[in-house]
Amino acid sequence: MKKAIVLLSGGVDSTTALYLAYAEGFRELHALTFLYGQKHVRELLSARAVARAVGVRAHEIIDLPVGRWKSSSLTDANRSIADGDLQRKTIPATYVPARNAVFLSIAASYADAKEIEDIYIGVSQVDYSGYVDCREEFIRAMEKAINEGTLLGTVKERPVRVHAPFLHLTKADEIRLGVKLGVDYSLTWSCYRGDNLPCGTCDSCLLRAKAFREAGVEDKTRERNAY
Amino acid sequence: MKKAIVLLSGGVDSTTALYLAYAEGFRELHALTFLYGQKHVRELLSARAVARAVGVRAHEIIDLPVGRWKSSSLTDANRSIADGDLQRKTIPATYVPARNAVFLSIAASYADAKEIEDIYIGVSQVDYSGYVDCREEFIRAMEKAINEGTLLGTVKERPVRVHAPFLHLTKADEIRLGVKLGVDYSLTWSCYRGDNLPCGTCDSCLLRAKAFREAGVEDKTRERNAY
Repeated sequence: MKKAIVLLSGGVDSTTALYLAYAEGFRELHALTFLYGQKHVRELLSARAVARAVGVRAHEIIDLPVGRWKSSSLTDANRSIADGDLQRKTIPATYVPARNAVFLSIAASYADAKEIEDIYIGVSQVDYSGYVDCREEFIRAMEKAINEGTLLGTVKERPVRVHAPFLHLTKADEIRLGVKLGVDYSLTWSCYRGDNLPCGTCDSCLLRAKAFREAGVEDKTRERNAY
Repeated sequence: MKKAIVLLSGGVDSTTALYLAYAEGFRELHALTFLYGQKHVRELLSARAVARAVGVRAHEIIDLPVGRWKSSSLTDANRSIADGDLQRKTIPATYVPARNAVFLSIAASYADAKEIEDIYIGVSQVDYSGYVDCREEFIRAMEKAINEGTLLGTVKERPVRVHAPFLHLTKADEIRLGVKLGVDYSLTWSCYRGDNLPCGTCDSCLLRAKAFREAGVEDKTRERNAY
């Protein structure tokens, strides 16, 4: 069975990436989910549910200290998450420094240990909220670094591929694709505030709502969580 | 005051790197030490002692799960650390997958959060024990990835520099330099087995003994720890 590692937060992008990896023939899936001090640790429940729905071989929950430097409203208890603004051109306060570099390097360690040559990450530079580590230049540079810094990429001559299939896709197109792949998006979680129900007003809720509207798909996450 | 981050394990290389950063004018030093399941967690005491001797601004002890994949004799309790062999041409069992990629990406996160543009790492590809993530190709690729994946390297246009001053230095030359810089090597720790006293027979002890012999410097670590 072909093996792949998927970075799985439990949101729309990573969930779609997990389903896509399966559709692309990777039947032994290893999901990595990171706890990094994010306020919406609620997304971990979604990651669990999605991993179970797909039937992954392994689901690793990995605790990381990147929230500790206290520079993001997403991880700092003393800062609140601002209401969203999709017209904003500056870097949002929810930016977590070098998060995807850390996530991908941990994935590289797992890949090198388990001899898995394929890593999926659901980033998009179209709707990327100003996060610089969602751009193609970063993904390609990181792939190169991974191959220089692992046995797989060097002495074993089995290069690691970092798949970022949504880099140039809008979130709406991604959702259309996901629906075809059988994704149940009501299982996923996007809201940064991480209360029992999505707030509907943070950046992540706004992006999600816009994408579902554009895709013409109904989002039933609120209904699923209304108990 | 010029600021730098130094990856500090408490061994010979990272200790010399810390002193060199100071000598090169970086007077606000931030040391990062990683716990990754290594058996010689004893080195943490050395990192503390060295950080105190230099007078760092901050010393972060960071817990990472890379030992969890269980593929290194350095982290797996069910495997013993073999006696050393400096003639060995294969990758040693103590290799920890993609360790330096993980360490440097965490350093990048810290750098991006604190706006620190200089990172020191004490790797050498001369005496590198077959660890592929100690080679210049990896360091340069990782530096590129860090600059593509951080605000410092992109929108802030303040590129991060990864200093690896010992890449092409033998450990003996490094020790000669360290002695000039005032390093007290009896504070440092190299032994992989991590008992009260250095074993003297693992790869790391053999490399250390050879380097001190070549440098003509007496190693007093055993005396310091013999209590």
